[in-house]
Order: sequence, then C-alpha cells, then structure tokens
Amino acid sequence: MPGCVIMPYSDVVIVGGVAAGPKTAATVKRRLPDARVTLFQKGAHLSFASCGMPFFAAGDVQSFSELTQTGYGVPRDTEFFRSSRGCDAVTGVEVIDVDRNAHTLTLRRVERGETFEHQYGKLVLATGAHPVDPPFPVVASERIRTFHSPEDAMAFRKLAESGAIDRAIIVGGGFIGCELAEAVGSLWGIETVLIECEAQLLKGTLDPEMSALVEQELRKQDVELHLRATVTGIELNAEDQLQANIDGGATVTADYVFLALGVRPQAELAERCGLAIGACGGIVVNAQMQTSDPDIYAGGDCVESVHQLTGKPLMLYMGSIANRHGRVIAENLAGGKVQFPGVLGTRCLRVFDLNVGAVGLTETAARDAGFDVQSVHGSFPDKPDYQPEVKTMVLKMIFDGTTMQLLGLQAVGEGDIIRRLDTFAAFLQYRATVDSLFDFEHAYAPPYAEALDPLHHLAGLAHAVRRGQQFVRPGGLFDTISTNAVLIVDVREDEEAEATPLPGCWTANGTPVIRIPLGQLRSRLDEVGRDRPIVLVCQRGARSYQAAYVLKGASIEQVTSLAAGLQAVTDH
Amino acid sequence: MPGCVIMPYSDVVIVGGVAAGPKTAATVKRRLPDARVTLFQKGAHLSFASCGMPFFAAGDVQSFSELTQTGYGVPRDTEFFRSSRGCDAVTGVEVIDVDRNAHTLTLRRVERGETFEHQYGKLVLATGAHPVDPPFPVVASERIRTFHSPEDAMAFRKLAESGAIDRAIIVGGGFIGCELAEAVGSLWGIETVLIECEAQLLKGTLDPEMSALVEQELRKQDVELHLRATVTGIELNAEDQLQANIDGGATVTADYVFLALGVRPQAELAERCGLAIGACGGIVVNAQMQTSDPDIYAGGDCVESVHQLTGKPLMLYMGSIANRHGRVIAENLAGGKVQFPGVLGTRCLRVFDLNVGAVGLTETAARDAGFDVQSVHGSFPDKPDYQPEVKTMVLKMIFDGTTMQLLGLQAVGEGDIIRRLDTFAAFLQYRATVDSLFDFEHAYAPPYAEALDPLHHLAGLAHAVRRGQQFVRPGGLFDTISTNAVLIVDVREDEEAEATPLPGCWTANGTPVIRIPLGQLRSRLDEVGRDRPIVLVCQRGARSYQAAYVLKGASIEQVTSLAAGLQAVTDH
Repeated sequence: MPGCVIMPYSDVVIVGGVAAGPKTAATVKRRLPDARVTLFQKGAHLSFASCGMPFFAAGDVQSFSELTQTGYGVPRDTEFFRSSRGCDAVTGVEVIDVDRNAHTLTLRRVERGETFEHQYGKLVLATGAHPVDPPFPVVASERIRTFHSPEDAMAFRKLAESGAIDRAIIVGGGFIGCELAEAVGSLWGIETVLIECEAQLLKGTLDPEMSALVEQELRKQDVELHLRATVTGIELNAEDQLQANIDGGATVTADYVFLALGVRPQAELAERCGLAIGACGGIVVNAQMQTSDPDIYAGGDCVESVHQLTGKPLMLYMGSIANRHGRVIAENLAGGKVQFPGVLGTRCLRVFDLNVGAVGLTETAARDAGFDVQSVHGSFPDKPDYQPEVKTMVLKMIFDGTTMQLLGLQAVGEGDIIRRLDTFAAFLQYRATVDSLFDFEHAYAPPYAEALDPLHHLAGLAHAVRRGQQFVRPGGLFDTISTNAVLIVDVREDEEAEATPLPGCWTANGTPVIRIPLGQLRSRLDEVGRDRPIVLVCQRGARSYQAAYVLKGASIEQVTSLAAGLQAVTDH
Repeated sequence: MPGCVIMPYSDVVIVGGVAAGPKTAATVKRRLPDARVTLFQKGAHLSFASCGMPFFAAGDVQSFSELTQTGYGVPRDTEFFRSSRGCDAVTGVEVIDVDRNAHTLTLRRVERGETFEHQYGKLVLATGAHPVDPPFPVVASERIRTFHSPEDAMAFRKLAESGAIDRAIIVGGGFIGCELAEAVGSLWGIETVLIECEAQLLKGTLDPEMSALVEQELRKQDVELHLRATVTGIELNAEDQLQANIDGGATVTADYVFLALGVRPQAELAERCGLAIGACGGIVVNAQMQTSDPDIYAGGDCVESVHQLTGKPLMLYMGSIANRHGRVIAENLAGGKVQFPGVLGTRCLRVFDLNVGAVGLTETAARDAGFDVQSVHGSFPDKPDYQPEVKTMVLKMIFDGTTMQLLGLQAVGEGDIIRRLDTFAAFLQYRATVDSLFDFEHAYAPPYAEALDPLHHLAGLAHAVRRGQQFVRPGGLFDTISTNAVLIVDVREDEEAEATPLPGCWTANGTPVIRIPLGQLRSRLDEVGRDRPIVLVCQRGARSYQAAYVLKGASIEQVTSLAAGLQAVTDH
C-alpha cells in the first residue's frame, strides 16, 4: 500500500483518546501488564475533561490545561500515557480503514497526510460523537461555532476575554445549550439569546412542567429565551451583524453564535468496515461491549445504549457511561466475563442557581414504552426549615400505576437534588417498586436532611394517587380553572399569601378564591360548601394534600390538590 | 380508683409526642378520618425537632420555637394537633399504668399529681429514651446537665448567651458529645474539653482509623480531647470549680459539664405491664411494629431494632427511623399489612468542617456477625479537581471477602459524603454485592461529581484486594514500618512532597524513603530494587495503587500500597 511506512503489531489497539479509550487502556495494562496497548487519537488532546469545557468557557476553570492534567498537576499527554500507564498513545492520527480479515488498520497523520498501517489483536472503537450539522444555511464566519472540541471552547474564551462579544446566540436548548447559557452570561456579562425549536428546553430529560422551572430561571437571569422558534438560517446582515432568521419572520442579531444542536455517534469507520449499526445510528454492541466482530469492541458516545427499563435502544452521551464502558471492555479483553447492564439515563446539569436532573423515563418515554404511567410532584426543603441554609427543590416521580414499579425521577431546584437522583438510580437498578422507597434508610441529621426524605414523601403521594386522591400538576391549574366552575381554597397563612399572591390568571375569569389556613379548615367547612369542585392550594403541596383528607373526612368529595404547591407554579 | 375524673374512649391512644407518636397520629387520621386519636405527652412540647437541639444550643437556630413550629410558622401545639391533624393531644400527662385486659390506662397530671383513667382500642407506645445515668458520683449543680430535654438545651443556651461559661466539659464522645463539641466551641467561643473512656470517638459508628480523622479535626478546632479517660466523679473543688476526676489521677476543671453518656430505651411502662423486652432493653416488636400484645404497638427510640444484615437486635436512636415506624404502625392500625424491614444503621453528623457518617456494619460488628471481613479505603475529591469548590473525603468500605456482599460504608471529610451514604444504604437494602456498585449509574456533571463515582473506585479496590493486591490501612503504616525492614517509595510530585512531608515517625527508626514520581517509576526500577518489601505512598491512594501494578509488571512482588494516601494519615 502506498505511503505505508511502518507496520507494528499491538495486542490491543484503541481508537479514540477522550474517555472510554484511555479508561480501557489503563485498565487493560493493570490486568495484563505485558500487553502491548496502543491508542490513536485524531485530535491533539488526550484524556481531557470534555464535560468541563463549559466551565472553562465560563472562566470558572482558569486555564484549559486544568482540563488536561491530573489532580496532582501532571499533563495527561503521550509521555504520561507511556510513563504512568505503560501505553503508546499517538495523537494527530486518524484511522481511515480497518481490514478486519487482516486485523490491520490504515491510519493517516492529520497534519502531514501520510498513511501507515498498524496491526491489532483486539480493536477498541471509542470514536465519540460529532456535533449535529445545522439543517439550515449558515454563513461562513469564525464567530459561528459548535461547542464540541477544545478548539471551540478556546476560540470563544479568547474572544470573551478580550471583550469582543456583546451579545451571543445559542441555537439549541439541550444540555450544552443550557450549560452555555450560564457560561456565557454569568462571568462575561454577555447578553445571551437562547433559541429552541421545541416548546420546551431539555426535552427528553424533563417533562414540560419541570422544564418550565428552568425556563423561568433563565428568564430571571436575563437570558432572552425563544421557544418554538425554528431557525431557518444564519447570515450576515447589512450592519455586518450575525443574524438568525426564525421561521415566521422574526430575526435575532448577535456577534457570536453557538450551534448547540446536539451530537450524533461518530460511527462512520465502524459502518465502513461492515460492523452492525443500530436504529439510532450508533455502533451495536452486546452486553460485553463487543461489536458484531468478536475481535472489535466499542464504547463511549459512538455506541448505542439499551435502556434498562424498556429494553429499547437509545443514544446517551455521558462521560460517566463511557468510563464504565472502558472498564467492561478492558475486563473482557483480559479474559473476564463482565457485562454492561444498559443505561438508566441518569443526567444532571447546573443552570445558574438551579440544579437540574433526571433519571429513568420521562412521562412521554414511559407511555411510549407501554407503561401505565402515573406521576406525583412535590416541593421539598432539602433540610429542616429551621436550618439557616435550607433550600428547596421540586421533584416529579413517575411510576406504573398497575405494578407500582418506579420509572423515573425529575428534579429542579436550588436544593440538593443530586443525592436523590443517585439514590433513585440505585433503586431503578433493582427494578424497585414504590413501596421499596418507604424502606429507604437515608442518612439523617439536621445539617443534611429532614427526618423523612423527599423520596419517602413521594412514595406516600404515589399511594395517595392509587387510593384515588386527585392532584392537578404544576402548570395544569389554569386549564382546570378554565374548564370547570371550581372554587380555589388557599390553605396558607396570612403572611405567605401576602408574600406570594396567587397568579392573576387564575382569577381573571372570575374563578372564586377563599383563603382558609389549614388549621381553620375543620371549623370553616361551611365556607367551602359542597356545590362546586374544590381546588386546594398551598406553598409546597403538603398542606393541600393534608387539607384534602380534612374535606374527605367531611364527605366533601370533589376535591383536587395542586401538586407541589405555588413553589412549582411558573405562570406568575 | 381515687382521683379518676374522666374516662373517655379512643380508638387509638398514643403515648409519646415527639416523633413516632405524632407521625402515627397524623397518618391514622388520614387513613381513618373517623377514628378518635388521643396522644399523651409527658413533657410540655409536642412534635419538636429534638435532633435540632444542638443547633439551637449552638445559636445556629435562633429561637427554640423554630424547633416546635411548622415550616410555615405555625406552632405544633395541642391546638395544631386538634385543628390541623384532628387529634386530641394532651401534654403534661404521664401514663403510669396499663391494664391490658381492661384496655385502660392510668395517667397522672405531672404538675397537679391527680390521676385519671383512659380507655383505648389500640395503644401505641412511643415513649422514647432516657439519658444514661452516670456510673460515677456527680455533685448536685445546675451547671451539670444531660443534653436530652428541651430544658437541657434552653438552660445551656441561656448561660452561654449571658457569657457565664468560659470552659465546658463534655463527658462522652458519641453522637451528642461530638455535636455538642461543635455547638459549644463554634459560636460561643467556650473552651471545650471532651472526655471519652474509649480509645476512640464514635465507637460503633466508625472504626478507629476513621474516627482518628474526627479526633484530628476536634484538636484542630482547639477542643481538648481526652481519650481512654474514665471519669470517676464530678465534684466542686476548693476554688468552687466543677472538677472531673479521671481514673489515674488527672483532673479537668470547667464551669459547665454536659453528661453525654448515651441513651437507653424508656421501656419501664411496657415492662411493668408485661410486654416482652429484648436483650438490649428495648420493647420487642414484630415486623408490623406490634408488641407481644397484639393490641399494643410500639415505635421510635423505645423499641429494639433488628439489623437487616445480621438479624441481630440493636438499639438505634434516630428520628428518621421513628418517623418510619410511625407510618408502619398507622398503616397497620388502619387495616394494612405493612412491615418495617429492620435497620441498616445509616447515621451522620457534622463535626465542625467535617461531614461524618456510616451505614451498615463496622469491621468489628461485621466480624462479630461471622462475615469474612475485608475492607478498602480511598480518599476522593467530591467533584473534578478542576472545579474551584472541590472538597475531599475519606471513605472506607467493608465487604465479605468470600461472597463479596457489601457490609458497610464509613465516610469522613469536607466533601459530599451524604450522597454516598444514601446510595450505599439503597444498595444494602438489596443485599447488593461489590459488583453491583460497578453498575451504579450516578448523576454526573462537573459541578457535582467526577465521571466515576467513589463507589465505583471502591468496587475496583475491593476486586484488587480479592486478586491479592496488598494495602496497609490509614494509621497502620507505622506498625508495618516498625516490624519490617521496608523501603518507602513516595510516588508523588515535588510540590506535593514539599507541601505535605511524610510523618517524621515513619523515618525516625531509620526506615529508608525514596521519592520517585509515578511517571518516572518504570524508568527508575533499579532504585527500588528487589531485596526489601516496598511500601508505596501517595496523596490519595490512587497513584500508589497504580504504582503497585507497575512494580508487579516488573515482577517486584513484595509490594504494599498505603490505602487512601497521606490524606487519611492523622499521625503527623
């Protein structure tokens, strides 16, 4: 073959040097110290913390080198791989073909263009993901970029530091888009516009009433948010500004544009050499992370995952999953029989002051998978209210109303949601039911938690739903009011009602409201009456839940409580 | 009966008004709105947050009333129980006898002394715990108190606020003792002396090498710590100071003394009426929380728990457990068939800047229960090292070396340990094995976590132990050095070795040390040699673990790594 200059042999060759690849390399060398392990990386950086790029862009992380070094300050470069890990790592080299019969790779040096061959015993593909190409025309400009490579992050940071950006557009309201909204606005003071074609942010992670809390936070932080806005093109306008044209005629201008339209698996090499590709476009692997060729493994963002709760394929782009893939691949390369169990979809992000995340299935995904979907919502303090640093959070739990199997948890708030996501992930791993949450023995002390955890309360709410107690979900009250002649009963105290009035839209059409603090409800039942459906509201949903039992005890039957209370209401 | 003035009948009578009692009352009324529920409480306060008392004592919580009111500011008093919960709650009344045949209680009003009777359908005992009486003579003084009742907390707070305490002694280094050490010293600036008869603090929760980290923190915070110090008496000395005499002749003086010697179940009433009492002195209940009399249930601190991992009885005094007891009792009173699963021993506390906690069995408890006890230690950042707010923690995991069943987790550090305790508790609930931790899909994003969770790393370490890799535990290196002619190989970088030198005691007896950064180890193997056992040390334990594979790969066999690194070493 022309240009073939060397043709060495490695027991294990790994293609891709960010997460799954380096993890595989390090683990293989621990199991098999004598193995020859070679890692090829197309880009210049090895084992860099790609998930940390938004924090570098934001300025929270000072220097890009912090993302490419160990906790003790040593750069994770080819020398590190050689000396600390015992592997050959080669950067700036692209694998362009695989001859599976000959166990031979054809590679090209990115800078010089020369090609060479390299033989493998076992091959590991950890080729990662591509940014999705925009489905609209985009003018050529150095100021329109994805946010995917280190070069993307460094280009923005350099301009931001020089003060050359006044206003930035982010196209796409997924994880990267939302993380960038914080990164762009918080430190650099750049006016930020976020454009999303869907009716909500973070679709697939949050259901709409939960993403509404994130949308509210972005607006509070002065992010200009455009939902249901499909970009039809980005051009330079007459004033030489970048201009995003939105379907329907609106335009938005800025001096920087991020294209954050998501990613897709980088599976072209696998496809070219005839490996099985799945319905989502990712490489298909079995539980041992083996592709359709038993001598080729694959892991990380380029492979298709299987959801543990549905058995269905999906793409989940997470550095944590990629690292776990790497371990499984390495153990199997070393002769083990280790399986990857599939995914649960645990994911989280910070959006300004909010912690945001989910695990398991959204309502939509659960319904698509054929579950008898039920859900409950609650607002909770993350420690006792008497603790000075108490913060709140809104949780939504999804479960199967027939089997009571747990299906998903969504969480948004300033409070400590991560702990609840982690715990719920452990329960999902065991296909737990609602009742198993009652048996959860959480770590309780006043600086950290209440005597009962939010997960206990959510289990109680799920049983209340099963017994027929009626709830209206956050964001759903306006529809209820519009279509029913209801009476709203606000069971809060005077000071609370003054501090947080009910949304004006609830009463705009003449819907009557009376306020009876919970403690007075038993003695003022005549004011409630029996002739109209009642909607009970309070601050967090706990008192309206309690009040429903008081009314039920008095044989007042048409009673609904506002789930999660005014804390979770965003339309006011 | 003389003094008998009223004799009503209630479907459910509850004795005890702090945690399990009120939770039972509220839940019963939700399930059975028509039930008559009466709750008797000996003290003046109902449903108060007793676990919050140290934070009131410390001044973090301004007013005691914050511990006795709801999150929305309504006092949880008899009126609250009547109006919001639909229960009769009576304070200042002690139940002095139970006639189980007649289903009749005899009660005495604490202030006036008069007695009366009250009938019950079902009885619930939630009588709580007593402070343990000191096993040594104590002079009568208003300045020597337990820390158990609201009155105890208020008495101290009043004196502390008035500046009347310069120096306080805490006798007992359990949970309350350690919480008080922070409370006393932090806001009020009171010199604090903590005296504990055992060789460690928090025995039963932490193994000694983990409690050593807490002891180090207390000393750092200027708490005068006396371990292995048995108090033989507390008297007034010639200068009219309170003086604690310690076995062996030492004395400690102060102007306030807390007796924090632990608690014991308040089971006298149950015992008097012939209910079964267990080996630990608590009321025996079945899984439905029913005592030996099917019409009498019991919950909270007065009942004996069963450990889920050993099946053995133990006392666990937790407000969280008490609340969960209350729910189980109420559901069963309402005709359900709900079981309490036993306990896992999850517990935590804050000690100055440290978060401290454990779940499951300590090494000692696991060995006593017949497990093949193995343990691993690690020091971990709680998020990526490039995040500005990163903090560290030391974790110890205990597992069965034969079955690989998880047995316990202990955690100490400034980092977020609570999340790991909660998650581990969920795994223990399912009798999980080490391998199931590899399948844990944690919530990953740089503000919250690393790509691999500490639980993944601990699982990896457990497998390393199984494969025969040798570790010396934190605090164990000095013994290893003293008895073996070892070579210490420090694999850290220059700056780290300068910032954190090795403890002098390691080298005092001439033990040789060489420093070879991990990245240079492969090329400097001749300096390590093969003639002596090697002990590898680094900052957190990750590099020494890695270095052991490097040496093993070079057929150097007598190699041990210092588990959890210098981060967990307290003897320097």
